[in-house]
Amino acid sequence: MRFGVNYTPSVGWFHSWLDFSPSDTAKDLEAIASLGADHVRIFPLWPVVQPNRTLIRASALQDVATVVDLAGSFGLDVNVDALQGHLSSFDFVPSWLDSWHRRNMFTDPDVVASTAAYVRALAGAVADKPNLLGITIGNEVNQFAHAPHPAPHDITAEQGHAWAAAMVAAARDGLSSWSSGREARVGPATSAPSGTGSRPGPLVTVAQYDAAWYDDAQPFGPEHAADHGDATVTHSWVFNGSAALHGALGAGSVRHGEYLLQLAAAWNRDAARPNWLQEVGAPTNVVDPADAASFTERTIRHVLDAQQVLGVTWWCSHDVSRSLADFPELEYDLGLFTNDGRLKPAGQAFADLARAERTRQAAAVPPATALVLDDVLSDGTLRHGTRADCAPGGRFAAAWLALAESAPDGRGPQVVLRSRLSDTALLAARGIDRCVDVPSDLDTTTVRVAHPATTP
Amino acid sequence: MRFGVNYTPSVGWFHSWLDFSPSDTAKDLEAIASLGADHVRIFPLWPVVQPNRTLIRASALQDVATVVDLAGSFGLDVNVDALQGHLSSFDFVPSWLDSWHRRNMFTDPDVVASTAAYVRALAGAVADKPNLLGITIGNEVNQFAHAPHPAPHDITAEQGHAWAAAMVAAARDGLSSWSSGREARVGPATSAPSGTGSRPGPLVTVAQYDAAWYDDAQPFGPEHAADHGDATVTHSWVFNGSAALHGALGAGSVRHGEYLLQLAAAWNRDAARPNWLQEVGAPTNVVDPADAASFTERTIRHVLDAQQVLGVTWWCSHDVSRSLADFPELEYDLGLFTNDGRLKPAGQAFADLARAERTRQAAAVPPATALVLDDVLSDGTLRHGTRADCAPGGRFAAAWLALAESAPDGRGPQVVLRSRLSDTALLAARGIDRCVDVPSDLDTTTVRVAHPATTP
Repeated sequence: MRFGVNYTPSVGWFHSWLDFSPSDTAKDLEAIASLGADHVRIFPLWPVVQPNRTLIRASALQDVATVVDLAGSFGLDVNVDALQGHLSSFDFVPSWLDSWHRRNMFTDPDVVASTAAYVRALAGAVADKPNLLGITIGNEVNQFAHAPHPAPHDITAEQGHAWAAAMVAAARDGLSSWSSGREARVGPATSAPSGTGSRPGPLVTVAQYDAAWYDDAQPFGPEHAADHGDATVTHSWVFNGSAALHGALGAGSVRHGEYLLQLAAAWNRDAARPNWLQEVGAPTNVVDPADAASFTERTIRHVLDAQQVLGVTWWCSHDVSRSLADFPELEYDLGLFTNDGRLKPAGQAFADLARAERTRQAAAVPPATALVLDDVLSDGTLRHGTRADCAPGGRFAAAWLALAESAPDGRGPQVVLRSRLSDTALLAARGIDRCVDVPSDLDTTTVRVAHPATTP
Repeated sequence: MRFGVNYTPSVGWFHSWLDFSPSDTAKDLEAIASLGADHVRIFPLWPVVQPNRTLIRASALQDVATVVDLAGSFGLDVNVDALQGHLSSFDFVPSWLDSWHRRNMFTDPDVVASTAAYVRALAGAVADKPNLLGITIGNEVNQFAHAPHPAPHDITAEQGHAWAAAMVAAARDGLSSWSSGREARVGPATSAPSGTGSRPGPLVTVAQYDAAWYDDAQPFGPEHAADHGDATVTHSWVFNGSAALHGALGAGSVRHGEYLLQLAAAWNRDAARPNWLQEVGAPTNVVDPADAASFTERTIRHVLDAQQVLGVTWWCSHDVSRSLADFPELEYDLGLFTNDGRLKPAGQAFADLARAERTRQAAAVPPATALVLDDVLSDGTLRHGTRADCAPGGRFAAAWLALAESAPDGRGPQVVLRSRLSDTALLAARGIDRCVDVPSDLDTTTVRVAHPATTP
């Protein structure tokens, strides 16, 4: 079980890439390491690294490599995200892809080839680092693919698959210089990347915001998370309705990370594929700052109960400075540290758990019960509405939560797709010995009001 | 008469701000100085300097100041443009003004205040430089205010005036640290900035693309050029239809810069206000490269015939490198130098003229004839369609060209607005002693075909 932190630079936020300071970075990373974290996730800004479609700045790649080295000096592994893309309400899209030069980000051949060239170059720039945890294609790039983005690049699910496959291939190509023979970095040998056989080394992952799981209209779906790369990534944000429905400390909120991990695992084709809660945080628009530590502790404890968890990576390290404008209010208070470096109660809670649990082995026995998700109709065709049912307040989400809260061991159930119920080998490999349907008489009202909101 | 060059860095184009190299810059500036130029115009990228609305990077301002110093070491004055904004088909809009954070660039109070803060800071960073020619608010910012921009920030003409006034005030505020007492930099004493009395020192200007003069729907118009700042700026690009109508070397093309200067001067409220042809170039989509030198020479010679000309600033110094993608084809061949620094025929033509004419005094006697532009209807109200008449191929443009080509001294006529015909003091100050109406029987066809196109 890995504990990590999404690294938000205290000086200049991600604009600090424009004025890269190794010493400022080292100070932040030293603080993160003091929490007992074993890794950070870092975020180059796409237009800074690739300002022209055919110009990938060597000095920008070098700065990224330097951050990886600095982190290593503090005992931290590093996951590098490529396409930012989107961060904390801001879009960073290169000028060659916007306005007069706007083309579809996911399907235009020149754009896709050049985007892949960037991912390949970035991966190559850090491929030889012994502390490289992995490459993520980009932070929640799926938000560009559909509403509510103000100017989405519309695509089909198939086009999303082609794009994700191209980006993962580019990352792997870039990483090919990685010297084999060292230990896989995903934890115990049993959690080696699925589908790659003996391939050790850095993980390649695709990160999506939760519309992939909850919005039937979002072209990137669970399959894009589960069918590409080496682990299935989830990002848990309870401002998605969970906290409004269940209260910030309600089970539907503090189990939301666990729930997303179980939901994601249902689409994995290999029972051994790791699942990574790559982002989770305590947003103050729905979590009272006084509840943040409790929210943090309870969220992580529930995650520890799930099977095949690669790790949890908290968002984020440092509050955004009040000297920077236009962030959503919650971003100024999401850090485990204040902007000037003081440890916050949530940071203390994270550190206590990281120190106590970082050597923990994955649960030996997965939850034995699985709730069946009706992903297909009785005739076997895909059912539109499946993802809406999974969203906070949906029938499936409510049923999962009710099962989780009534479980004697407190562990939320696994999830199995109805379309895979007949795959007995898969079920056996997952340790599932009881499949439960969503009750036809489910009263979602009782679930929704079980834990009144502690914040408006 | 000043001769200058718009400086397009040979290494990395304007993305070189991300990897600022004083030595690369010095090499380019040395080449520009070798042409006999006396000034350059330089272009910081807005999102690089102001990546967050309340973060203006000190190091970026320092880089701009360094370029000004380097230019000074080669005897070059420098005009600094602030809001890029737009350059060579690419838009550079900060993330805090785009996508999820999109607000009206010209009217949102927070945006305008922060944009003004940037203009003020940039002006302040170079205010003490003895070779500062001036500050331009930004390169053709009016293109963001209306179609055909793909996502225009719609405003009224009045809102455009408020914005321009705020930006000019910000620039002047930033320049206030400029130590008075040195010579005005606009040339002979008679061409001191109008409307500023004894105010010497750097010019503040507002630059617009020619829709301001030619498109009745463009919210920024001639008044925005003539009523703000210290000089009236024009940008002449014959791909606007001039070359298609008249041929690249036709009078309507090689006189287009002269024509725009005369058109602009018609709106000046002070006869002594200088006019600046701040951009003009030989775009290869309509000017055959073999004709570029001739186009350059003839264009500049016609400009020399106009009155109150501050100078001409050629676009541009260096061809864009073929290693950079997605530029319009013509941008790879607009330089006076090739990308690797060889002087091109157009560069030689520019240099010959600059060396011969840079000490030339403004023409002692302005053209005595003025063509009357019907800016108002008979009842005195503004006439919609005035600007369309001025555009290439329009009735007014055709009449001006016919007069210019038939003038014994070869000088194109001045332009006077019908609404100002009764201002005899202004006409006297401008040296106008004959006003001519557009002939009612004007046959624009003959004008259009007088000079067949040399390029498709």
